[in-house]
Amino acid sequence: METPPLDIVAIGDAIVDVIATCDDSFLAEHKLTKGSMQLLDPQAADRLYAAMGPAREVSGGSAANSMAGVAALGLNAGFVGQVADDQLGDIFAHDMRALGVRFDTPPLPRGDGSGLPTGRCLILVTPDAQRTMNTSPGASHQLTERVLDEAMIRAASITFLEGYLWGPEQPRKAMLKAAGIAHSAGRSVAFTLSESLCIPGRREGVMGLIDSALVDILFGNEDEVRHLTGCGSLGECLDSLAAKVPVLVVTRGAAGAVAVTRSERVEIRAAPVAKVVDTTGAGDLFAAGFLAARCRGRPLRGCLEAGATAAAEVISHFGARPEADLRKLVRL
Amino acid sequence: METPPLDIVAIGDAIVDVIATCDDSFLAEHKLTKGSMQLLDPQAADRLYAAMGPAREVSGGSAANSMAGVAALGLNAGFVGQVADDQLGDIFAHDMRALGVRFDTPPLPRGDGSGLPTGRCLILVTPDAQRTMNTSPGASHQLTERVLDEAMIRAASITFLEGYLWGPEQPRKAMLKAAGIAHSAGRSVAFTLSESLCIPGRREGVMGLIDSALVDILFGNEDEVRHLTGCGSLGECLDSLAAKVPVLVVTRGAAGAVAVTRSERVEIRAAPVAKVVDTTGAGDLFAAGFLAARCRGRPLRGCLEAGATAAAEVISHFGARPEADLRKLVRL
Repeated sequence: METPPLDIVAIGDAIVDVIATCDDSFLAEHKLTKGSMQLLDPQAADRLYAAMGPAREVSGGSAANSMAGVAALGLNAGFVGQVADDQLGDIFAHDMRALGVRFDTPPLPRGDGSGLPTGRCLILVTPDAQRTMNTSPGASHQLTERVLDEAMIRAASITFLEGYLWGPEQPRKAMLKAAGIAHSAGRSVAFTLSESLCIPGRREGVMGLIDSALVDILFGNEDEVRHLTGCGSLGECLDSLAAKVPVLVVTRGAAGAVAVTRSERVEIRAAPVAKVVDTTGAGDLFAAGFLAARCRGRPLRGCLEAGATAAAEVISHFGARPEADLRKLVRL
Repeated sequence: METPPLDIVAIGDAIVDVIATCDDSFLAEHKLTKGSMQLLDPQAADRLYAAMGPAREVSGGSAANSMAGVAALGLNAGFVGQVADDQLGDIFAHDMRALGVRFDTPPLPRGDGSGLPTGRCLILVTPDAQRTMNTSPGASHQLTERVLDEAMIRAASITFLEGYLWGPEQPRKAMLKAAGIAHSAGRSVAFTLSESLCIPGRREGVMGLIDSALVDILFGNEDEVRHLTGCGSLGECLDSLAAKVPVLVVTRGAAGAVAVTRSERVEIRAAPVAKVVDTTGAGDLFAAGFLAARCRGRPLRGCLEAGATAAAEVISHFGARPEADLRKLVRL
């Protein structure tokens, strides 16, 4: 049986989130910057985990969360990401497939020499619903272009690339290759910025990708587009980037979001949320709603609104994967 | 540094819960009886897991949940249970220790020949908040009396034994030995019945334990005490069992709970819950509240009320471990 062509295929970190609540003093004690993402080596991750409170485990990964949202919205989604052959890897793969996301990347074979486990992200949620992420990427950063399914990428309307995975050399090469395959097949490439832009050299690499006209749809939040462009005001950031990408989408948290294309500039407010519990995944689900609506041919405002509604659902509970029936919330 | 003597030490299954929602048709399709617990071999567990929706993982185990509650109530708790040397075992151990529960049972060494992973319980929660449990006990049933810390048991006010673990021979021997150690040190033994009473031979074994006067406090729900005694009405069950155990506690779900001692019989209503989300762990947290209040010298009614309040918290969210600050809800 041939599988149907995908609407969107993403390449990103394959991570299981380990979510615990904490108070501000815990962040201070462990020198963690609220709202940030930092990379931890396995030993530092073990130390932080030992200090954390009891946790729940939920599959995560930025672009993987987006594909969970895309599938929950009823579209055909695929995901490429590297897990190890271990229990967290089984959990990640199960959760993707259970959502209907095509996920065929084989786990790193045991005894492959790397000895790396499936990646995990220790997420600390403070009472103000801010998340502070501490990622031990493990197997996730061992992704190579060997695992790319070229036919799947050629057949997908959009190939979605995760900025967090832009750092390590092999995954970056794989994403560059995927972007080339997508473009040569006349498909679109979307890229989501990530906080890891502040890592030295990272900004220039991403800017190079954009300057090579490999990005058709660029997602970022305000901080990220400021880091990327070096511009002071949001307006300058938008002007600078909109000249380089056909579709620019900037999320602004509680202030809403803005999208700029060659012909349009649309702003929306954030969707209402009764109680914000955990902001993890807000940007990921915004991208999911936006991309799903775009695949369905919605106008720019409709894409933004779909993004805002999906984001509002995911911040109303712990974990970065949708829990409510997104198809009822976002009518596509 | 010497550790302080414990208020309560429990022996039970060391399990990670894998919690997914489903609708009634899923239960029917997979021939699962709503509200029940069944044991699955690893292959059957893998098949059911593959069919389940995306899940969250939260540490569980009946008596382990109770100890989580006891620790959350500010008492000194310990737990004895068998995990494997794997990621789920790490998660279980982390969550116990992060709650302040003393947990020193070494994991089964890798390559011990059993090849069994840490136990997991696939929990399906239907929209009516009922949980249907499918347990693959794995390493948990490999517990032997070798891992008992006799000094810890002698020093704990109450030794709490889990009915689910009464089936396999080695754990049953370990629990019998622990009960003997506790009694010879002048301590109390509590036992919580479980649905596994319907497994042939199990009922007789538990009745034997009770008839040998090894149980000072017996917990069960209505179904369980009916299975155990073979009596028709609740009143008959209570009369029959109260003659054999100094303290009998029977939970009745939304109908409340009743406790019978030689001198008293007290009934209470269930504590109010705004929205019941997932009833997993209700009995476990009831036992936690009751035992904690009893250790603090509360009268019988106060013990029941502490149990009802702790149970009400745990059924208001997914997962069988308390999430709110129990010390604020139950003032001991």
